[in-house]
Amino acid sequence: MSKFKFKEVPGAVVAAQGFLASGVFCDIKRLGTGKGSNKGQKRDLALIVSEVPASVAGMFTTNQICAAPVKVCAERVQGGVAQAIVVNSGNANACTGKQGMKDAREMTALLSKQLHIPDEKILVGSTGRIGVNLPMPNVREGILAAAQLLGDDAAHADEAVEAIMTSDTRPKKIAIEFKLGGKTVRMGGMCKGAGMIQPGMSATGARPAALPQGLHATMLCFITTDAAIEAKTLHACLQEAVANSFNRITVDGDMSTNDTVLVLANGLAGNEEIRSQKSEVRTFQAALQHVTLELAKMIVRDGEGVHRVVTVRVEGAKTIQDADAAARAVANSALVKTSWHGGDPNWGRIIDALGYSPATVVEDKVDIGYSAPGSRKVLWSLKRGQPTKATFKELCAATAPKEFDLHIRLNLGQACALMYAADLTEAYVDYNKGDVTDPTTLGG
Amino acid sequence: MSKFKFKEVPGAVVAAQGFLASGVFCDIKRLGTGKGSNKGQKRDLALIVSEVPASVAGMFTTNQICAAPVKVCAERVQGGVAQAIVVNSGNANACTGKQGMKDAREMTALLSKQLHIPDEKILVGSTGRIGVNLPMPNVREGILAAAQLLGDDAAHADEAVEAIMTSDTRPKKIAIEFKLGGKTVRMGGMCKGAGMIQPGMSATGARPAALPQGLHATMLCFITTDAAIEAKTLHACLQEAVANSFNRITVDGDMSTNDTVLVLANGLAGNEEIRSQKSEVRTFQAALQHVTLELAKMIVRDGEGVHRVVTVRVEGAKTIQDADAAARAVANSALVKTSWHGGDPNWGRIIDALGYSPATVVEDKVDIGYSAPGSRKVLWSLKRGQPTKATFKELCAATAPKEFDLHIRLNLGQACALMYAADLTEAYVDYNKGDVTDPTTLGG
Repeated sequence: MSKFKFKEVPGAVVAAQGFLASGVFCDIKRLGTGKGSNKGQKRDLALIVSEVPASVAGMFTTNQICAAPVKVCAERVQGGVAQAIVVNSGNANACTGKQGMKDAREMTALLSKQLHIPDEKILVGSTGRIGVNLPMPNVREGILAAAQLLGDDAAHADEAVEAIMTSDTRPKKIAIEFKLGGKTVRMGGMCKGAGMIQPGMSATGARPAALPQGLHATMLCFITTDAAIEAKTLHACLQEAVANSFNRITVDGDMSTNDTVLVLANGLAGNEEIRSQKSEVRTFQAALQHVTLELAKMIVRDGEGVHRVVTVRVEGAKTIQDADAAARAVANSALVKTSWHGGDPNWGRIIDALGYSPATVVEDKVDIGYSAPGSRKVLWSLKRGQPTKATFKELCAATAPKEFDLHIRLNLGQACALMYAADLTEAYVDYNKGDVTDPTTLGG
Repeated sequence: MSKFKFKEVPGAVVAAQGFLASGVFCDIKRLGTGKGSNKGQKRDLALIVSEVPASVAGMFTTNQICAAPVKVCAERVQGGVAQAIVVNSGNANACTGKQGMKDAREMTALLSKQLHIPDEKILVGSTGRIGVNLPMPNVREGILAAAQLLGDDAAHADEAVEAIMTSDTRPKKIAIEFKLGGKTVRMGGMCKGAGMIQPGMSATGARPAALPQGLHATMLCFITTDAAIEAKTLHACLQEAVANSFNRITVDGDMSTNDTVLVLANGLAGNEEIRSQKSEVRTFQAALQHVTLELAKMIVRDGEGVHRVVTVRVEGAKTIQDADAAARAVANSALVKTSWHGGDPNWGRIIDALGYSPATVVEDKVDIGYSAPGSRKVLWSLKRGQPTKATFKELCAATAPKEFDLHIRLNLGQACALMYAADLTEAYVDYNKGDVTDPTTLGG
C-alpha cells in the first residue's frame, strides 16, 4: 500500500471513462402525501450509468430485516455484470412487503426501457424512512426525467450525490487517477450516511455463522472505475476493502436494513483484465481501499450531530474477535461517547466498557492513551491499570481536538482492531427525536 | 404471587425490627481536592446496621473490571452472616489498585472498631467516579460521625438514602409489611442509580460461560428484613428476584464496575427460620420480588435525563436467549430511544433493531404494538410485518404517555423476555458530557 501512487481528480462517479450520472427532484420524501414542507426541494433520485456493460461486485447489510432493493441487488450482482444503478432517497422501501419488491423491480424495468439496457443488468438502492411504500407516481416521473438528463461532467455527478443524501449535511465524494498495467485508470465514488450507522455487510446479505458482537446505517456507496477487472476478483477486492472501511465505522451502533456498496468496473481504461493472480490486483486493491476508507471516514465526520471523531485502536487482544468486541464496546458506549462530546478524558468509562465487553480484559494489564490522528506519539492516561502522571489538563488537551486517536492496549495477546467512531451529542438526539407534528422531520 | 398480600409502611431500611441507619456529609465528591462547588453539600456516607447478626446474600456486577468494595463484599457474603454496611457516594473506588482494596478494608475495619462488630461481618459499597482514590481523611471522619448518629426512625433512613445518591434526582426507597409463618414481617429497601445502568449481576461477580448479549449502572441496593431465613435460601430467593428486576433494566446500556445488591435478614420477627423446602419461601420470594422490582423501576423512571419509560415485552421468540437479545437490542438502540423521546411511533427503527440483534427474526412474522402499562389492550402498528390500519395519530397517542408498554411478538416460538427501558434525551447527553472546567460536574 505504501507504494500506491495516485492523484485526486474531480468528477466523482463520472471521473472514470464511460460513466454518466444525473440527479433529479421528484418529491419522494413527502411520502406522496403532499403534506409538510419540501425543505428546499433537495434532489431525491439519482442514476449512474456505464456506456458499456461492467463487472460488478456488491456487499449488503446483514440485518435480517432487509429492504426490497437490497434483495434485488444481492441477487443480480451474482451475475457479475451490470450497467446502471437507480437510487432514491426519502424512502427506504424496507418492510414494504410484496409491493416493495414489485416497486423495486418496476424502478429497474422502467430504466431498462428508457436506456435499452437489459433489466437484470440494472441495480437499485433506496434510503429513508422504513415501512412506507414508495410514492411510485413520483418515482416513475423521476426516473423518466433523470434518464433524459444524464451527463458525464462533474456537475452531473454532483447532482447525483445530492440526490442520495438524507440527513447528510454535505456531499461525500472522491475520485482518483492511478497507473494500472501501464494504463491510466480512474476510480470514483460517492456515498451517503449519517445515522443508523454501524454497517456489517457481507456479499450476500446472509449473516455469518458467528455474528460479531454489535455488528450493527443506512449507508449507500457507489463506486465506478474504468479498470478492466474480472467480476470474481473485483468481488474479493471489495470484500477486503469493506472489511477495513465501512464495516469499521459506527455513528450510533444501529445497523440499517439498506446498507449497500456497489462497484462497477467497465474496462474502458484498456488495461489487461485483472484476475486474481496478477500483481495488478494489489494496486487495484490499494485504490479501492483508499476510496472506500476515505468515503467511510466522511460518513463518520458528517454523522448526525457529530462534533468529534475518535479512532479507537485496540491492540494486544487475545483474539481478533476480542479486539473487535473491545473496540465496538468502547465505540458504542453512550457514556464514553458523551464524555468525548464533553472533552472529558474519562478513562473510567472506557475501562468500564472494556470490562463488560465480551473480550477478555484484565484490569492491571490495560493501557489507555491519546494521540493526534495517525500519530504514534501517545499520551498515556493509564498504564497497566494505574493512572499515569499525565495531568487532567494535559489529558483534556489531548481530547479537545475535533479528531483524535484513542489507544487501548489490552496486553494479553497480539490481535488488533480499530473502529472509526463519533461522540454522542444533544444535536443527535434532537435530530432523531423529530417532530411528530411534521412527518417530514421524522428520520429513517 | 397473586395471593401475596402486603401493606406499604414507612421507614425504608429501618422499617424492619432491629435495623439502624445514618447518613452524613464528609465531602467525598470533591475528590479531596477542595476544588469546585459542593452543590448543596449532599450527604455522601451511609450506614445500615442490624442490632444482631443477620443472614446475608449479595449479587454483584459481572463486569470484569470490578471495584474494590465489590471484591470485598463478594468474598464476605460467602460466610452467610453480616451485620453492617458502610457505603459512600461520590467516588466508586474502582480501578484504584492495591490502595483501593486497602481503603475498602479500612472502611470496614474502622466501623468494626466503632460498633464492636467483627470486621468480616461488615460489608462495603461505593459509587461515583471511577479511577480516583478515596479521600480517606474525609471517609474516616464520615464513618466516625455516622456511627455516632445511628437511629431507627424514618428520618435516619432518609438520611442514609440521600447519602447514596449520585445523579439520582430523588430518593428510591420502599418498605412493606406482610405475614410470614404466622408472624408480622417487614422488609425495606433503598437503592440508587440513574446512569451507567444495565446491570448484569451474578452471585460471585463471575461471568456466566455464555454472556447474554448486551449485559451491560452503578446501581446499589440494600434490603433489610426481620424475617428469619437461612442464608442459602435467602441467596436463592435473591438470585430469582434480581433476574426479574435489576437485571431487566437499562438506562444507557452501560454496565457498571460497582453494581451491588445486598440483603440482610436478622430474624427478629420471630418466624420459624425459612429453609428451601418450606412453603413460606414462596411468600418471602414474593415480598423480595415486589421490593426489588419496585426499586428497579424507580431507577429507570429517575434515569439520567429520562422523559419516558417503556416496558419492552418480547413474546414468541425461538429461545429465551433470543427473547432476551431481541428485547435488549430494542431497549438499547439509540434510534429507537430517540424516537421514544420524540413520541414517534417509528416501528421501522424497532424492526431494524430486531433484525440486527442476534435473535432469529423473520420480517413477515413480526407484530409490534403499544398498550398502557400492564394492559393487554394492545394497539398494533404492525401485524405479520405489515402496517395495520392504525393511524399515525392513534399511534402517536399510544406513545405520548410518560410510560407505555411496547409489545413485540416474533411468532417463532414460545419464549418471552421483557426489559424496563428509557428514552434517550438531550438532558442525558448534557448531564454526561459534564464540564471539564469544573471536575465536580464529571460523572462516574
